[in-house]
Amino acid sequence: MQISSSLLENAVNEFSRLPGVGKKTALRLVLHLIRQSPEEVTRLTEALDKMKKELRFCQVCHNIADNNLCNICANPMRRKETICVVENIRDVIALESTQQYSGLYHVLGGIISPLDGIGPDQLNIETLVGRVNPEIQEIIFALSPNIQGDTTIYYIQKKLEPLLSAGTLRITTIARGISFGGELEYADELTLGRSIQNRMPVEKYVSH
Amino acid sequence: MQISSSLLENAVNEFSRLPGVGKKTALRLVLHLIRQSPEEVTRLTEALDKMKKELRFCQVCHNIADNNLCNICANPMRRKETICVVENIRDVIALESTQQYSGLYHVLGGIISPLDGIGPDQLNIETLVGRVNPEIQEIIFALSPNIQGDTTIYYIQKKLEPLLSAGTLRITTIARGISFGGELEYADELTLGRSIQNRMPVEKYVSH
Repeated sequence: MQISSSLLENAVNEFSRLPGVGKKTALRLVLHLIRQSPEEVTRLTEALDKMKKELRFCQVCHNIADNNLCNICANPMRRKETICVVENIRDVIALESTQQYSGLYHVLGGIISPLDGIGPDQLNIETLVGRVNPEIQEIIFALSPNIQGDTTIYYIQKKLEPLLSAGTLRITTIARGISFGGELEYADELTLGRSIQNRMPVEKYVSH
Repeated sequence: MQISSSLLENAVNEFSRLPGVGKKTALRLVLHLIRQSPEEVTRLTEALDKMKKELRFCQVCHNIADNNLCNICANPMRRKETICVVENIRDVIALESTQQYSGLYHVLGGIISPLDGIGPDQLNIETLVGRVNPEIQEIIFALSPNIQGDTTIYYIQKKLEPLLSAGTLRITTIARGISFGGELEYADELTLGRSIQNRMPVEKYVSH
């Protein structure tokens, strides 16, 4: 692409470094910003600068936070006896958007994946084990339903075993099966097979 | 979407004001930036701030420019006797990318469109007429092939008529017809009809 201004070209290049943003999209975004008021552009750049400078990670659950604690850990209304273990921040946002969960989270920062060179030591597993005290009643794993996710669950479960002896701590995983609105004939065999194995009483089925 | 950090939420909101960027895309971009080094983010925000602060419009052709003149008008290698009239800056970039044109441009800033409330007075037409001097040999219209584009060409042609008497100024339009690689059967009737009316000698046909 031939751009007759180095200022514009520079802005386009920086935008196109973002994931999923090509040169043409970057140009469209930059030309849009050119038409906006200077305040509009400053609002965007200041929001990014401020976020980058001030954003932290929660010291308890590793979620993103404005302070030492994230809004969820700092919220006295959340049920402290349940911890939902997720892979990343995006999963926290997805689960929060369902408005169906009122406990706390623990962000692992990934899942065990030897092929990608990610071992247990690179994940926030020690801090999770450290959080488990007699008050905690349930740990819910909400990890990707694949081998890496299952390996991670297995590894953490082993780590938690000494703490399980008291018998008050339940370890669960989010339900897996056919999506709501999904069509049986298009479901993969593994999901469909597991879903008939793990069939549940109709009264548990809550429709929306 | 429930985001547990106001800093993050703010950045996502600002990103999602860009055209074609929804909340989910904005979140993906912002989470990407969180993982980058602070310098990386500063490079993006500085490029945008600098562009917004310093970018100007060429005093001659209304293209974007780093100074009073755009790189094209300031380039002594460009042929000064040809002016290509386009609707917007994006068209300049598209034409420059073909590397087939070595003359100058004139950016109208739109085309005459009474339905959208755009009349000739809102466009850079007076400055175009002002640029026409005996040295100019050709004005090429590269406008959208629709009624608004044709109206704009007609209007400007009328304005230029007094200057045409000398007989040295040619007014042309970019060729319209079937796209290279396009299939005849999928071409619309108007294009196909015009393209048989305006057929050209085979020796003019330059393949790439």
